[in-house]
Amino acid sequence: MSRKPLRVGMIGYGFMGRAHSNAYKQVGQFFPSEHQVVLKAACARNADLVKPFAEQWGYESVETDWRKLVERKDIDVVDICTPNNLHKEIALAAAAAGKMILCEKPLAMNAAEGQVMVDAVEKAKVANMVWYNYRRIPAVSLAKKLIEEGRLGKIFHYRAKFLQDWTIKSDLPQGGQGLWRLDAAAAGSGVSGDLLAHCIDTAIWLNGRLDTVCCMTETFVKERMHTLTGKVEKVEIDDACIFMGKFANGSLANFESTRYARGHKAQYTFEINGEDMSISWDLHDLHRLQIFDYKTESKLRAWSSIHVTDNGGEHPYMDKWWVPGLAVGYDTSFTHQVADFIKGLETGTPQGPTFRDALETQQILDAILDSAKSQKWVTVAK
Amino acid sequence: MSRKPLRVGMIGYGFMGRAHSNAYKQVGQFFPSEHQVVLKAACARNADLVKPFAEQWGYESVETDWRKLVERKDIDVVDICTPNNLHKEIALAAAAAGKMILCEKPLAMNAAEGQVMVDAVEKAKVANMVWYNYRRIPAVSLAKKLIEEGRLGKIFHYRAKFLQDWTIKSDLPQGGQGLWRLDAAAAGSGVSGDLLAHCIDTAIWLNGRLDTVCCMTETFVKERMHTLTGKVEKVEIDDACIFMGKFANGSLANFESTRYARGHKAQYTFEINGEDMSISWDLHDLHRLQIFDYKTESKLRAWSSIHVTDNGGEHPYMDKWWVPGLAVGYDTSFTHQVADFIKGLETGTPQGPTFRDALETQQILDAILDSAKSQKWVTVAK
Amino acid sequence: MSRKPLRVGMIGYGFMGRAHSNAYKQVGQFFPSEHQVVLKAACARNADLVKPFAEQWGYESVETDWRKLVERKDIDVVDICTPNNLHKEIALAAAAAGKMILCEKPLAMNAAEGQVMVDAVEKAKVANMVWYNYRRIPAVSLAKKLIEEGRLGKIFHYRAKFLQDWTIKSDLPQGGQGLWRLDAAAAGSGVSGDLLAHCIDTAIWLNGRLDTVCCMTETFVKERMHTLTGKVEKVEIDDACIFMGKFANGSLANFESTRYARGHKAQYTFEINGEDMSISWDLHDLHRLQIFDYKTESKLRAWSSIHVTDNGGEHPYMDKWWVPGLAVGYDTSFTHQVADFIKGLETGTPQGPTFRDALETQQILDAILDSAKSQKWVTVAK
Amino acid sequence: MSRKPLRVGMIGYGFMGRAHSNAYKQVGQFFPSEHQVVLKAACARNADLVKPFAEQWGYESVETDWRKLVERKDIDVVDICTPNNLHKEIALAAAAAGKMILCEKPLAMNAAEGQVMVDAVEKAKVANMVWYNYRRIPAVSLAKKLIEEGRLGKIFHYRAKFLQDWTIKSDLPQGGQGLWRLDAAAAGSGVSGDLLAHCIDTAIWLNGRLDTVCCMTETFVKERMHTLTGKVEKVEIDDACIFMGKFANGSLANFESTRYARGHKAQYTFEINGEDMSISWDLHDLHRLQIFDYKTESKLRAWSSIHVTDNGGEHPYMDKWWVPGLAVGYDTSFTHQVADFIKGLETGTPQGPTFRDALETQQILDAILDSAKSQKWVTVAK
Repeated sequence: MSRKPLRVGMIGYGFMGRAHSNAYKQVGQFFPSEHQVVLKAACARNADLVKPFAEQWGYESVETDWRKLVERKDIDVVDICTPNNLHKEIALAAAAAGKMILCEKPLAMNAAEGQVMVDAVEKAKVANMVWYNYRRIPAVSLAKKLIEEGRLGKIFHYRAKFLQDWTIKSDLPQGGQGLWRLDAAAAGSGVSGDLLAHCIDTAIWLNGRLDTVCCMTETFVKERMHTLTGKVEKVEIDDACIFMGKFANGSLANFESTRYARGHKAQYTFEINGEDMSISWDLHDLHRLQIFDYKTESKLRAWSSIHVTDNGGEHPYMDKWWVPGLAVGYDTSFTHQVADFIKGLETGTPQGPTFRDALETQQILDAILDSAKSQKWVTVAK
Repeated sequence: MSRKPLRVGMIGYGFMGRAHSNAYKQVGQFFPSEHQVVLKAACARNADLVKPFAEQWGYESVETDWRKLVERKDIDVVDICTPNNLHKEIALAAAAAGKMILCEKPLAMNAAEGQVMVDAVEKAKVANMVWYNYRRIPAVSLAKKLIEEGRLGKIFHYRAKFLQDWTIKSDLPQGGQGLWRLDAAAAGSGVSGDLLAHCIDTAIWLNGRLDTVCCMTETFVKERMHTLTGKVEKVEIDDACIFMGKFANGSLANFESTRYARGHKAQYTFEINGEDMSISWDLHDLHRLQIFDYKTESKLRAWSSIHVTDNGGEHPYMDKWWVPGLAVGYDTSFTHQVADFIKGLETGTPQGPTFRDALETQQILDAILDSAKSQKWVTVAK
Repeated sequence: MSRKPLRVGMIGYGFMGRAHSNAYKQVGQFFPSEHQVVLKAACARNADLVKPFAEQWGYESVETDWRKLVERKDIDVVDICTPNNLHKEIALAAAAAGKMILCEKPLAMNAAEGQVMVDAVEKAKVANMVWYNYRRIPAVSLAKKLIEEGRLGKIFHYRAKFLQDWTIKSDLPQGGQGLWRLDAAAAGSGVSGDLLAHCIDTAIWLNGRLDTVCCMTETFVKERMHTLTGKVEKVEIDDACIFMGKFANGSLANFESTRYARGHKAQYTFEINGEDMSISWDLHDLHRLQIFDYKTESKLRAWSSIHVTDNGGEHPYMDKWWVPGLAVGYDTSFTHQVADFIKGLETGTPQGPTFRDALETQQILDAILDSAKSQKWVTVAK
Repeated sequence: MSRKPLRVGMIGYGFMGRAHSNAYKQVGQFFPSEHQVVLKAACARNADLVKPFAEQWGYESVETDWRKLVERKDIDVVDICTPNNLHKEIALAAAAAGKMILCEKPLAMNAAEGQVMVDAVEKAKVANMVWYNYRRIPAVSLAKKLIEEGRLGKIFHYRAKFLQDWTIKSDLPQGGQGLWRLDAAAAGSGVSGDLLAHCIDTAIWLNGRLDTVCCMTETFVKERMHTLTGKVEKVEIDDACIFMGKFANGSLANFESTRYARGHKAQYTFEINGEDMSISWDLHDLHRLQIFDYKTESKLRAWSSIHVTDNGGEHPYMDKWWVPGLAVGYDTSFTHQVADFIKGLETGTPQGPTFRDALETQQILDAILDSAKSQKWVTVAK
């Protein structure tokens, strides 16, 4: 069998660079298809850093200028794993060069940038996707399935939180390697764009459009050393962000994110309360989905914890991995995303979240940050 | 030993009438003191209902007019277990008659009423307390102790929810026996006064004053049969209520309550994130307090679940009950409250929440309902 | 309404004396019946200890000689809460005097004693019951109900453990107040009679007769100060006991108990694996029953945790207590037992465990201790 | 950098063939070393089955005769993933050919076979290891570390269970593809060799030598269709196996395994009770280790649940994967084992479990099966 190569050019080599690379390597082994991913080139400004990365992960070549990578004829897909402030420029160039694009989340610094990017990929007709990987944690995909089957009935509430604690230390600097998430110039925003973006993407996928929001943000540590300027500078990102709102289906939203919740490392949770069923999920135990099914006989009615490996591979993606009881990890969400991206290519039905899907998240992010500033309710732009 | 009688006159005979009566019976057995509670009289308009209640619980006599009860010379303490709209009138009469008062929560229909009640008991110099019983669940009292010991450090976040699901059925009527909580005329408000009042009382006790709030409410079922009018009437209470806000200590508030969270019966939870320790609690497993202690050696750092019975009676109130491992129930929170009320009498230091403490909760309730109406941030009155 | 008095004479005033007394006080309030429990007399050798107990709990009189108590005309029921070595003698006297008997567990020091006691109460035709209270924890009663409804199908496995850690300290003495459980002369055995007796009672109630057993015991601390002799004496009780066996229904037994399981205070757990359903329970969270129902639609199949308060009082005993979500404690198991004892009197159908039921547990205890000694499989006597 | 190739010849292509192959692919990316694993050849009798496997996983060539594979000059390591009855013959041939050997567990059909295999690899001086992969689940490795640091103090109890439910259906055949585990001729034994072997390997690693055992086994379904003979044949394997015993350190053993525990898929759990600390683990939530540390300040003492990802990579192997909060899966245990095997090659200190280590497990398996047969206590051979 000769499979069609899908030649990837990776821009970036950090945490996400590794997660994506692992997925590219695994996808053919667990989700064989007509395509064969080829790790063609890895790109970063610093050759001394990108070379060992490329060698360790098996990239065939390296580039130090992303513009060159984007122009290379032997690249089919550009994977953008840079800080947020570079997404737009790279995406526009890649689209112009006719490349498929897989872009890290959030899509852009704001909705205006996002709109330009959507226009570019749609005009260029290139396949595109954004790495909101949590959609493809099997338990989250199962939640989607239960909703699509109509099991929840009318939805009353959607609650999501993404809690971390890694920036409590006030002597942590902003900016630079691994710390660009604290630097508003590189990240655009704080926990809203970094963490709530995930919560919002999942929410609109599972529960539909969010119409109105009201938000508050807080920056607990007001000043931090900036590693690029060498000076103590005002912190411009949001350390914490809470918003409430209303979905188009009438359900109420309660969202919160922070990096000051001692004891929580990446506790992304959501809960949906429907008339007939409630479901909840927690990233810290990602292989489980909790459900309460009101349709169960009353005597046995209770919250239950579905172990997604359990049912002989009936749950999403789980027929491809191990035998029942043996949990898969965080990393598989990326493998599933690549598998679905390829499926989109092969079936002709693009798999989301596309740039256009991710633009909606961007519009909500703009709305909540506007609300936090104006201290007013804000209607999300459409 | 001759103990001093504390003669109780109980107004009401419903769920709370039973819970309080059980506490009055148990207190002398588990928390012996100089006082001996005597169940002197039970009162309700309907003699056919109050008589069997009185007999079952051992009240010595019955009354059908609360004004008579309040005037009786052989009553020391009036316990108000009526719907909210009667609290003020009874409390004023009881205070005027020089009676001590134990009043069900919320204190009043609103802060204005509450202020009048506070003035009355303070002018009359009568002992007074409000039945925010959750303060005295041992695990919650333990939370208070940990905070007072300074173990949490600077507080960043306070989150509370009180979720129920008993009013999802749209054919449930409003008003009448057991359903007055759906009738705005009797209850004043919906989940805010009924459920969030508890969350707020605990919060201000544990985390101090709440300064500003922003709130949304929702009434999912717009009309219900009214059992008193016999007609389908507009539902005036809030079915769900979410608010965010800021405490005086700089921490962020996220509160939510609903009666439309399928699968949750009385899931009152709170979580507090401090710089050095986070704690959380869940009424559904009330005998446990979860903590994350950052001061633990890093290798062993984790969330732990303290079983309050465990430590040889070291945890609040637990030296009075059973041996380690054997959980106590919801009912003991009332027994503890009576024990502390008596302790207040014997030591001369009133134990909260007094009417004055409960007035603060009332002010916050007014502020959140104002905010929900105006769709604006509101500063809590002091 | 005039209720028939049920006049109790209590022998003992320790932990169980308090637990039973609380039940006697509560039963009429929560489980009203034709009978009215009257606390007639409390008895213990030491007048200085039994008087305050009697006063605190409202016993009308005290005795210091149990023989006198047993002879009193105004006593209907004798409650035996003494160390195990006195059960037989008291029970025989009480039966001879025509008293009903409620006896603490284990029934006797061994099966031979138990047989004599069974013969005595059956000959005297007096109502009798043994305080294996865990049968009446609502979640355990629910387990019984599910089994009786045939929901589990063929049973393959029954596992039970009762783990404590309170005797790890080697300087804990044996004998004397509260420590008679370490003294073989008073207790008969160690964890087998004290803890496994509970596990066995529940097991034979839920799963039927146990035919054969093979056991090992261990005494980790070989010598302890004896408070009665004042000397360091050999410890004769079993500190830990493990046995396996086979039930008459073909299922396999795995039982274990110890007082050397650091971190567990009274962790009594059992799990039953049936062809169609598995169930498990943990005393540390006694208000929950875990179930796995294979008959659930495969996609939703999972372990669930039934909160016994939840279902509008549908679960055993729970219609008598509070509203959904509000857990009851350990103490209610005794209240339920008294309520059922009275129900037995009123219906004419004795409620177990009777002395005869408890004799079966005694026979199994004999068999496991024989097996531990002989290091052989032993058939349980019938 | 030029890395030294480590050329693997894989015999088998089933569940374990896939798990090992994934590990070989991942190890260089997450645990870079001086060696580079090369997937040289995959071998199975049926060319139609092994070819697609080899292609999917990137093996350079295929063989249909394991003897040829073992003789190939371009193979450094032979990985034996066949049914148990072929382990010995292949291992002897591989050792004779000077190959390193990685053998699936259990090492052999019995201790006698195992001894021959140990002699062969030790005589040939070839590196060898057995795939008891659970040692290298990070939480289990953390347990080892805590024990080595002396944190548990004197050990009193070691309990382990491995519960499954996949053979309850009586129409499941024995023998053939994927079902050889039910066929005594291929598997040697049932749950003892398949599941308890894992429990025993972990136990002797964590808690030392097991001296004496007493065991019972059961075969619930007595006859099953045999896919190789086409006839209903007696089932010769053990469906369930319980044993108790005593470790050399004086602690008591309680082990159980079954394939008839409805609701459990691969619930391997262990708990160790030490004087100063207890620990427990559950494969169904493999990323957590529960501990109870008696040395914690009494007020905060509780069971806690360490999320092994949490502490900035401090826990075993976790510095190589993702950021805190993001769980890894079952598959990583194999990756860790390959990494450690290579570390053994590079440091000259063989990493266990070696064939010799695995022989001890085999001796215990022999002892328990002997005990089940003789219904007597048996001393484990050394």
